[in-house]
Amino acid sequence: MSGTVIILGGGSLNGVGGALAQRFADEGHHVLFTGRTLDTVQATADAIAAKGGSIEAMRVDVTSEADQDALFAHGAERGEIAAVLYNAGNNAIIPFEQLTAKQFENFWRVCCFGAFLTAQRAVPLLKEQGHGSMFFTGASGSLRGKPNFAHFASAKAGLRNLLQSLAREYGPQGIHVAHFIIDGVIDGDRVRDNYPDYLDQMGEDGALSPAAIADAFWTTHKQHRSAWSHEVELRPFKERW
Amino acid sequence: MSGTVIILGGGSLNGVGGALAQRFADEGHHVLFTGRTLDTVQATADAIAAKGGSIEAMRVDVTSEADQDALFAHGAERGEIAAVLYNAGNNAIIPFEQLTAKQFENFWRVCCFGAFLTAQRAVPLLKEQGHGSMFFTGASGSLRGKPNFAHFASAKAGLRNLLQSLAREYGPQGIHVAHFIIDGVIDGDRVRDNYPDYLDQMGEDGALSPAAIADAFWTTHKQHRSAWSHEVELRPFKERW
Amino acid sequence: MSGTVIILGGGSLNGVGGALAQRFADEGHHVLFTGRTLDTVQATADAIAAKGGSIEAMRVDVTSEADQDALFAHGAERGEIAAVLYNAGNNAIIPFEQLTAKQFENFWRVCCFGAFLTAQRAVPLLKEQGHGSMFFTGASGSLRGKPNFAHFASAKAGLRNLLQSLAREYGPQGIHVAHFIIDGVIDGDRVRDNYPDYLDQMGEDGALSPAAIADAFWTTHKQHRSAWSHEVELRPFKERW
Amino acid sequence: MSGTVIILGGGSLNGVGGALAQRFADEGHHVLFTGRTLDTVQATADAIAAKGGSIEAMRVDVTSEADQDALFAHGAERGEIAAVLYNAGNNAIIPFEQLTAKQFENFWRVCCFGAFLTAQRAVPLLKEQGHGSMFFTGASGSLRGKPNFAHFASAKAGLRNLLQSLAREYGPQGIHVAHFIIDGVIDGDRVRDNYPDYLDQMGEDGALSPAAIADAFWTTHKQHRSAWSHEVELRPFKERW
Repeated sequence: MSGTVIILGGGSLNGVGGALAQRFADEGHHVLFTGRTLDTVQATADAIAAKGGSIEAMRVDVTSEADQDALFAHGAERGEIAAVLYNAGNNAIIPFEQLTAKQFENFWRVCCFGAFLTAQRAVPLLKEQGHGSMFFTGASGSLRGKPNFAHFASAKAGLRNLLQSLAREYGPQGIHVAHFIIDGVIDGDRVRDNYPDYLDQMGEDGALSPAAIADAFWTTHKQHRSAWSHEVELRPFKERW
Repeated sequence: MSGTVIILGGGSLNGVGGALAQRFADEGHHVLFTGRTLDTVQATADAIAAKGGSIEAMRVDVTSEADQDALFAHGAERGEIAAVLYNAGNNAIIPFEQLTAKQFENFWRVCCFGAFLTAQRAVPLLKEQGHGSMFFTGASGSLRGKPNFAHFASAKAGLRNLLQSLAREYGPQGIHVAHFIIDGVIDGDRVRDNYPDYLDQMGEDGALSPAAIADAFWTTHKQHRSAWSHEVELRPFKERW
Repeated sequence: MSGTVIILGGGSLNGVGGALAQRFADEGHHVLFTGRTLDTVQATADAIAAKGGSIEAMRVDVTSEADQDALFAHGAERGEIAAVLYNAGNNAIIPFEQLTAKQFENFWRVCCFGAFLTAQRAVPLLKEQGHGSMFFTGASGSLRGKPNFAHFASAKAGLRNLLQSLAREYGPQGIHVAHFIIDGVIDGDRVRDNYPDYLDQMGEDGALSPAAIADAFWTTHKQHRSAWSHEVELRPFKERW
Repeated sequence: MSGTVIILGGGSLNGVGGALAQRFADEGHHVLFTGRTLDTVQATADAIAAKGGSIEAMRVDVTSEADQDALFAHGAERGEIAAVLYNAGNNAIIPFEQLTAKQFENFWRVCCFGAFLTAQRAVPLLKEQGHGSMFFTGASGSLRGKPNFAHFASAKAGLRNLLQSLAREYGPQGIHVAHFIIDGVIDGDRVRDNYPDYLDQMGEDGALSPAAIADAFWTTHKQHRSAWSHEVELRPFKERW
């Protein structure tokens, strides 16, 4: 067991990025944990390190080519890369007529263009190894556009087809490209702070546990290469879909 | 850990049914292993029992209401049912103009109607428990129809939408309904006997390992109910799709 | 302009079958209008004939091989067949646990098996001509399964993949196979009699006009073969989807 | 019959943009025909005007907010807008590892961002009218990503989900948003100049006729609002899909 796991779009320990870091560290991997705000990712890394995990934090803005260059240069230093986990993304309800061109572009930069920059840097490294995972977080918006989410659904769909191209091209070269469709609300700080009633209303396990999402990433990473999943949908048992 | 696992459409130890039985037995479950030919399922059960598994064989034709009644009556006797795994199916290349009405119907009976009979008997039991898995095997033909496979693609699509209805209705009641899209050739007796060149041509891990498929069934069965998958696609890393 | 148009699943003049008959008769085709109840299809045919259309009625149960044999034998007598329009289908809300095996099978017989019988008889005739349309009516249930519609969604999905197989196989031989996804309520006798409030609530043009559906069939039939549609979705402008 | 039809992404008379202009002019609409190169769109407009069409040309780079502002300001001057047809797009085979970040972004700007700019300007005008069409050209890459087309498939998928959001939001307000999936090679200058053998190989009607595509745009524009299509797929009868 070994190899570095690079996480982009990391945040607090309670979020999906934090849960991914904890799980892959628990399984014995060294984790390179990155996000836009150094204090946040450092605090998460410290908490995981305190429990015995091998982890380091780094400030990376996924939309910056220079930041991503620095990340992958550093990531490659320790040798083998087991997995690259792209969890960057954001979301907001914005009526189409209030949406600015800048907002529309920014959603694309974070959800889609940043993933492209990551894939371009990860592919040569994983290809040379002949194996390794490249996993990305999607949403129900990746599959269809609803009112008030044109920006998000467009950006996430752009990510989805990018990943299909990559999976079809690099799967046969040993790179496992997977796309996780998170179809529901994630039980984390964002919903707890902003919509506490929602969680009460959904009841027990009505929102996705970040640890359960991390478990899906881990089991997918461990899949035998004769039976890989590319698109993995995850939703709470109570979710209406 | 406990509860019976009922497998329909079981066959030899080398096939998907056999691999499912082996895996769920290895994990500590009692397995009720069924198939159309008693000798075949009994031999598989004996082999698994010899390695320490708790397993029994039973002759069940999935298209027979009486057989399915007997199966679920017997299955319910031991108490809790952990999972019902429907693996019945068949396939054949048949040009549309050579297809008989009887063949078209038979494919539907095995791939779709039998699954309906199973679901009708499993749902009340699992609903009363408040939990339990109901998993079904699909194929790339479940998603689209190609020439020479009208019978198969039609039957498998009928299964798919049936399962979506069940997942949407019974998920919130605690029943995990999942559909496994096997998108590739399974490395088993059928292909080894009939198309040995195909396996050579695909190279190492170019066909799905039954044990790898069973692993996907198992990890899906173990998913936390806040993050369930409904449709799980599995394909060899080399597969063109 | 010529050639017979065979319509299966015809009913009253106000329904989709009636609108199809009216439109294709208006465009100069001879129409062979069939349905399960001779009185109904005869009344529709008489009404269209009274307005100058060339039309004849015939009793055909789509699930009967003998009836379909007789239909196509008769249809072929007049020479060229321009189009075969399969509009048979039914629907009902039935909770899964109340559904009988017989009901599940009957939905499949009408929505899917009958279409198979039609295609088997139409294909050789259209293939020999080198052209001709084979159109089938679908629904939103063709695309996904919802609770209480397992029987309908399963049967309609079986039809959908059957049609994909046929389109991929016989398109290159000049047969235009198309599948019309009716995603909404049709403004006809059924809804007027049973759910008059629904129509009021949806407002003007909130339910699909049978004539508008017939227009889509007609324009699709007239498509240049370099730009054919296979799946045609139709929904009211107000529909939520 | 009246109202202006605005076409973006226009080119030569032989292309899809030219065919759209010809058809909508033939049907009696005034056409505002725009493209990146004034000489090209002017020549097309002149040719159509010479045949009696009411048409004017204008230079518009779809990725420029200022150009699009000027276009819609001008378009609104004549009164009612019947339809806005967005046909801008480009394509190229580029292996992922040779793709530059700039190229990836440029594909998104032309295929997706420009459409967003158009929709933002067209929506308020059409909403106020209470009717009008907003149609966009897509491709098979809109639906899935293949190797060597990551840039194109990603950009086109971003367009697709944007359009779904718009259709679901503005359909009920009377705006007909449609997305045309062109699944095949278009018979035009590009393929005639670069791949003449391809056309020979495909045989008669093996590539999409621009006039046939324009016919689909027209019949969709004329659909009764109780039976609208949102996604319209068009492919040659011989196409493998």
